[in-house]
Amino acid sequence: MSEGSTDGTPKSKKPTYSFHGNERLTALSDGIFAITITLLVLEIKVPEIAENLVATELPRELMDLVPKIFSHFISFIVLGIYWIAHHNIFMHIKRHNHVMLWLNNLFMMCIASVPFPTALISQYPNQQISLVAYSGTLVVTGVVLNLIWWYAITHRLVDEETTDKAFIAFVYFYNRIGPLLYLLSIGVSFFSIAIAKFVIVVVAVIYIVPNPLYRQHYKQLARRFNQ
Amino acid sequence: MSEGSTDGTPKSKKPTYSFHGNERLTALSDGIFAITITLLVLEIKVPEIAENLVATELPRELMDLVPKIFSHFISFIVLGIYWIAHHNIFMHIKRHNHVMLWLNNLFMMCIASVPFPTALISQYPNQQISLVAYSGTLVVTGVVLNLIWWYAITHRLVDEETTDKAFIAFVYFYNRIGPLLYLLSIGVSFFSIAIAKFVIVVVAVIYIVPNPLYRQHYKQLARRFNQ
Amino acid sequence: MSEGSTDGTPKSKKPTYSFHGNERLTALSDGIFAITITLLVLEIKVPEIAENLVATELPRELMDLVPKIFSHFISFIVLGIYWIAHHNIFMHIKRHNHVMLWLNNLFMMCIASVPFPTALISQYPNQQISLVAYSGTLVVTGVVLNLIWWYAITHRLVDEETTDKAFIAFVYFYNRIGPLLYLLSIGVSFFSIAIAKFVIVVVAVIYIVPNPLYRQHYKQLARRFNQ
Amino acid sequence: MSEGSTDGTPKSKKPTYSFHGNERLTALSDGIFAITITLLVLEIKVPEIAENLVATELPRELMDLVPKIFSHFISFIVLGIYWIAHHNIFMHIKRHNHVMLWLNNLFMMCIASVPFPTALISQYPNQQISLVAYSGTLVVTGVVLNLIWWYAITHRLVDEETTDKAFIAFVYFYNRIGPLLYLLSIGVSFFSIAIAKFVIVVVAVIYIVPNPLYRQHYKQLARRFNQ
Repeated sequence: MSEGSTDGTPKSKKPTYSFHGNERLTALSDGIFAITITLLVLEIKVPEIAENLVATELPRELMDLVPKIFSHFISFIVLGIYWIAHHNIFMHIKRHNHVMLWLNNLFMMCIASVPFPTALISQYPNQQISLVAYSGTLVVTGVVLNLIWWYAITHRLVDEETTDKAFIAFVYFYNRIGPLLYLLSIGVSFFSIAIAKFVIVVVAVIYIVPNPLYRQHYKQLARRFNQ
Repeated sequence: MSEGSTDGTPKSKKPTYSFHGNERLTALSDGIFAITITLLVLEIKVPEIAENLVATELPRELMDLVPKIFSHFISFIVLGIYWIAHHNIFMHIKRHNHVMLWLNNLFMMCIASVPFPTALISQYPNQQISLVAYSGTLVVTGVVLNLIWWYAITHRLVDEETTDKAFIAFVYFYNRIGPLLYLLSIGVSFFSIAIAKFVIVVVAVIYIVPNPLYRQHYKQLARRFNQ
Repeated sequence: MSEGSTDGTPKSKKPTYSFHGNERLTALSDGIFAITITLLVLEIKVPEIAENLVATELPRELMDLVPKIFSHFISFIVLGIYWIAHHNIFMHIKRHNHVMLWLNNLFMMCIASVPFPTALISQYPNQQISLVAYSGTLVVTGVVLNLIWWYAITHRLVDEETTDKAFIAFVYFYNRIGPLLYLLSIGVSFFSIAIAKFVIVVVAVIYIVPNPLYRQHYKQLARRFNQ
Repeated sequence: MSEGSTDGTPKSKKPTYSFHGNERLTALSDGIFAITITLLVLEIKVPEIAENLVATELPRELMDLVPKIFSHFISFIVLGIYWIAHHNIFMHIKRHNHVMLWLNNLFMMCIASVPFPTALISQYPNQQISLVAYSGTLVVTGVVLNLIWWYAITHRLVDEETTDKAFIAFVYFYNRIGPLLYLLSIGVSFFSIAIAKFVIVVVAVIYIVPNPLYRQHYKQLARRFNQ
């Protein structure tokens, strides 16, 4: 539409061939998110106990599942964070081209990978390699998310009427908090795995609890959609 | 749109930043419901029998599956009840904000959790802890569903033209029957697990069989959508 | 809309409270179909062979999978038949009410059940009980499909402008061929399991190969949608 | 609509009965793609290690997963290639009939089959039969994709205003590169399995890296959609 309008957004050097409509891209993405989230939760299995020991052993065995349930719960929140981030940036990205389809495919592969390091960290919770794999996967996922936003901005795939420079910068800032803290947790893991895990929990809290950051984010979005 | 109109709905104190359009929220939710329902049914496995015993053992082994099939059937109905409830309230909720996305995520985690207590109760049917886990999961699910409705009403995320005070109260009443009866079944389980299970079956029946309650519910909805 | 128009469709006695829009109903259904189809195919597992025997044993072990692959292929076609039938009748059903939601839930439970009798018949191919379970599941699925159509017609949930008496009768006839032949295969199984299986294959062929029946069916649909 | 317009597209001999709207066809397809992609990634399992050996064995065991992860990564790209191809041709295919529904079902069965030969080639990487199964599946998938395009063109299921003869020929050419190279890899496997695998990796690279071929493809699409 307003292919020629360039106010407030960076220019792309060469003409871009792109298409309106991301319905199937978001449908595929929602499908992959839904399956990954569901299977993550389904991985918690009922303990097998010999019949004569059930009454005495079952409560204790269920209690033993709590650490595993907790690590899956954290991964569930992580997937929720990335789903909301994907949902929010695709409220602005209105077009796609070949590269965008592959960047989104790459992001989806990262999302579908999350159950693996989750299983690793819940099975081998005290190994540094588990934590590096877990945080490493989330760093890569966050980097790809930022790549999608960067590519959309620089190749004019966003709705130019709902994104100004301040807003673009805000989204960059906001979506980099997670990956940077996950990177920090990798560094910290060389000294203390417990503190590294604590950092991961902090990220979950930051992105859920409403705070000034969020209000700013939503105010920006609302200003554009709720006029 | 009619942001200023306040007739018949409670006011929210501070301005709310929210967005029109729940397509991806409902797409993710339908995906999670679909996977959970399908995997619940798929958990019924064909018994393994030695080749020379197949002719004599297979019918009996299949009969042994009946209690398990029954408990999965009840969970299937429970998921159907919650899907219909989610479907019905999101016929009125037309906007979302950050908190609504997380409330819905939380609801979806509850939904994806249902197969776990279902497996527990079908594997250890006579343990009180199985029943408490099962009913407890469904109480929490129901509470979150009511939280979604409460939050939508108090933060003006509903279509104000299709919801009046009587209707809002009706939905509250209607969606609280399930969780309250599940809570009752937990209490009852201290005296009789069989009666507690019977209460769970009663809930399934109440929400399926058309009754005056339902007609009232649908009459309310129809009055608004079928003018 | 044209609630008062009754030409060519049966009347419902009491006023019906129903809603326009089946988007989420079909989204949930497509999700369940997609998962069931995919998991059906995924159940074919790579054989485990000791390393020193791989070169000689692998080709033979893969050949041994052929009967299993064939039975899953037939179930894949069966699911395709029912998906197309569901897709086709919901081109006409434009409204839903409480009962329709539950009828569709029931249909979806039947669909999600198909992998179980498929596994049964591929594991115990010569037991009559396997064939009865397989055809029995498909009979029930077909009956529920016909119930959905009957309910939609008698409760005015269809688009009255695209369905006349001849068309309604045609859909009834067309969607009863499958269940009736599956019922026949159960009867035949008392005399010959091989012939009973042949009947099941015949149903698959009937619904795929274009024939006068199909042309009539699609001519009817096209007359209404392609004017 | 422009049923009579025949400029630039082949004629179909007899009148075709077909319907506008492929929403459910693409919804089912996206669902099957999403599940297949996710389960492909989920098949990478955390190694089981005795507790006293974890610290020393875990890094090595994770390294041993690399070849498996690589083969799954290639299959992930293959599924991405086919999803994008399906997405792109269904930007032009606007109608369907009975045969198109079954061709798409067949394509979806091929897609859902991909994890099987992937598991085969990652478990028995040096057997020629693994490579033949892998490339063979992808040849068949590619042939069915081309059949869908051919059928849509010859039966006027495409949007005639966005497809001219040059564009149709281009899509044929473009979507045949993959299947032809996979066929080549089968031939090559009789001499060298390593080179045959290399050919498969080359296909992945060809379809991802932007090149003159791609630019031409997208320029064609853009000319039609971005006027």
